[in-house]
Amino acid sequence: MKKFRLLAPGPTPVPPEVLLAMAEPVIHHRTPEFEALFAETRRRLQWLFQTDQDVLILAASGTGAMEGAVVNACSPGDRVLVIRGGKFGERWAEICQAYGLTVIPLEIPYGQAVDPADVAVLLRHDPRIAAVFATHSETSTGVLHDLEALAAIVKQTPALLVVDAITSLGVVDLPMDAWGVDVVVGASQKALMLPPGLAFAALSERAWAAAERARLPRYYLNFLTERRTQAKNQAAWTPAISLVAGLKAALGLLQAEGLPAIFARHERLARATRAGVTALGLTLFAEQPSPAVTAVKAPDGIDGEAIVRTLRDRHGISIAGGQGSMAGKIFRIATLGYADPYDVLTGIAALEFTLAELGYPVRLGDGLRAAQEVLQK
Amino acid sequence: MKKFRLLAPGPTPVPPEVLLAMAEPVIHHRTPEFEALFAETRRRLQWLFQTDQDVLILAASGTGAMEGAVVNACSPGDRVLVIRGGKFGERWAEICQAYGLTVIPLEIPYGQAVDPADVAVLLRHDPRIAAVFATHSETSTGVLHDLEALAAIVKQTPALLVVDAITSLGVVDLPMDAWGVDVVVGASQKALMLPPGLAFAALSERAWAAAERARLPRYYLNFLTERRTQAKNQAAWTPAISLVAGLKAALGLLQAEGLPAIFARHERLARATRAGVTALGLTLFAEQPSPAVTAVKAPDGIDGEAIVRTLRDRHGISIAGGQGSMAGKIFRIATLGYADPYDVLTGIAALEFTLAELGYPVRLGDGLRAAQEVLQK
Repeated sequence: MKKFRLLAPGPTPVPPEVLLAMAEPVIHHRTPEFEALFAETRRRLQWLFQTDQDVLILAASGTGAMEGAVVNACSPGDRVLVIRGGKFGERWAEICQAYGLTVIPLEIPYGQAVDPADVAVLLRHDPRIAAVFATHSETSTGVLHDLEALAAIVKQTPALLVVDAITSLGVVDLPMDAWGVDVVVGASQKALMLPPGLAFAALSERAWAAAERARLPRYYLNFLTERRTQAKNQAAWTPAISLVAGLKAALGLLQAEGLPAIFARHERLARATRAGVTALGLTLFAEQPSPAVTAVKAPDGIDGEAIVRTLRDRHGISIAGGQGSMAGKIFRIATLGYADPYDVLTGIAALEFTLAELGYPVRLGDGLRAAQEVLQK
Repeated sequence: MKKFRLLAPGPTPVPPEVLLAMAEPVIHHRTPEFEALFAETRRRLQWLFQTDQDVLILAASGTGAMEGAVVNACSPGDRVLVIRGGKFGERWAEICQAYGLTVIPLEIPYGQAVDPADVAVLLRHDPRIAAVFATHSETSTGVLHDLEALAAIVKQTPALLVVDAITSLGVVDLPMDAWGVDVVVGASQKALMLPPGLAFAALSERAWAAAERARLPRYYLNFLTERRTQAKNQAAWTPAISLVAGLKAALGLLQAEGLPAIFARHERLARATRAGVTALGLTLFAEQPSPAVTAVKAPDGIDGEAIVRTLRDRHGISIAGGQGSMAGKIFRIATLGYADPYDVLTGIAALEFTLAELGYPVRLGDGLRAAQEVLQK
């Protein structure tokens, strides 16, 4: 009897209530039943996004919604500032380049967060910048960027602030309307506790105005078409019906918990994880760590990929390794979505075994006790 | 106790075996387990597409794969011939226009099929045409186009043949390699018996060569990136894991049945449906009807939408009405996917009740007997 556990920053485990909702018979998407399901799900998403704006539901993974943000917010020749501090910041740049935009990269060393003052300087010196592309929680490095400060700066300029909130939404506070964020993009397989296959996008009034003016080619990801159709509780293209049914159930679980409790839970689990790994003598990678995922440096002489592989093959636990140039150098333990204190302790216990198996000196229980002390508070 | 039934041309009912596969715990997509799942699923798709080429699996609905076909097969300034004989042929034109291609429309009256000889003439007179966009089974009109004849003509020219096979794949024979079709696009919620959310695309050697040369902007739907990644049994972006698990199960059911039996089943159910409705004095809309869906003219004085609404609200059966300019004039009963003779008889029986309720003269049982006589053979 071997159990498999997901402690990866997406996909995350799906609660049984959500699995059951997705296993219900598929209803047709042009019926009053689907419209009622879609209407309630859209209302719940507005609650999660903390916005009065429509939250579009797309049949795509998060990258699709990112591309949608680019093609609906920008026009040919636009100059855009892209904060590149990890794989997902780089993805913004790749998409913008694929559409021929002029990308001004703001390079942030991996593991560090952007200094919002730098963005202010760049925007002041280049007032033609049409949009700033940012990552709230950079999954590849485990860094949480200070989105509130960033938004306060960008909203004083004509530039739009476009944010990948794929691993921050439902993890940390992100009051889109109150902070004045222009585009927020999310996906299903993170704190929303669903399988991958749905992505989300919400736009501010000025982002919708930009979408009306935008002249990049777009069809499947045309947010204007989606907005018009979703206002009637339909989707422009056939929606991923079973995932939408699961989404309604997942949002119901989140609403029962409440936003403050959700944010406190993620913070507590992440702090326990950090305490556990540092008590084992390991070093955190992120200077400003995200509660979604804890990135840890692989100790000298031990390959980070071997840690990931051993956890998976011997202990049945999926965590994440380093991506791109970080491969082998870090490993990442997630605490987002359907996770509780015993998931954290399971992860730390298995990490202790794994490190010992790979020849790293470990006193069993040191990490666990440190994590427990955080969790007991 | 009221049961709900789907007799619509997508989404179609999902078999219990497939619902169970999708309700299994989500596995991480960067694991050997997922790679094994993806590898087997890809092999099974090659069997369904009757091709030695890779069949790409995308997290999108069918329209996303259609857009992917356009942006990977074409380049700015390309002249393309689009066969427009219904809503989905028109969608090809809309996508091509969104990307600034020069569309040469071949208008086919609704309910009729394209004459392949007309395509031959147009290609001969305009040798610069880079691609022909066609619909195999035009869901909006219930017409099956003669794809084999079309392919025989197009393959003698430099133009690519790009086919929306969304409601024909797994319904009628479509030996992609043998016929020389260049791009075949499919989706999950039709004969594949899955919820919506997955789309598929397979490309011939010359279509892959065009994709290498193509210069339209593309990122999420970049087939080159997907092909390179899927060759390693991974997906470029996070795949819709639970739907992929369901897809493997659905393809397993189809393989157990076998392609000849699948095609014969659809033909038999559609013939029984046609016999049932014509025995009630109704007229078929399509001159060359598709086995996927039977389009029927609403009788004089009766609104087609009232038929759809009554079937749904009083009898719990979802069929489809007419789309666009066809609204109210036709209704459409599907026989594709997870359907058997008793589903056809249920649909005809409910149609008899519905027509009587709406004041159309019906002798109960006439349609049923006619359908039974086809099914008994």
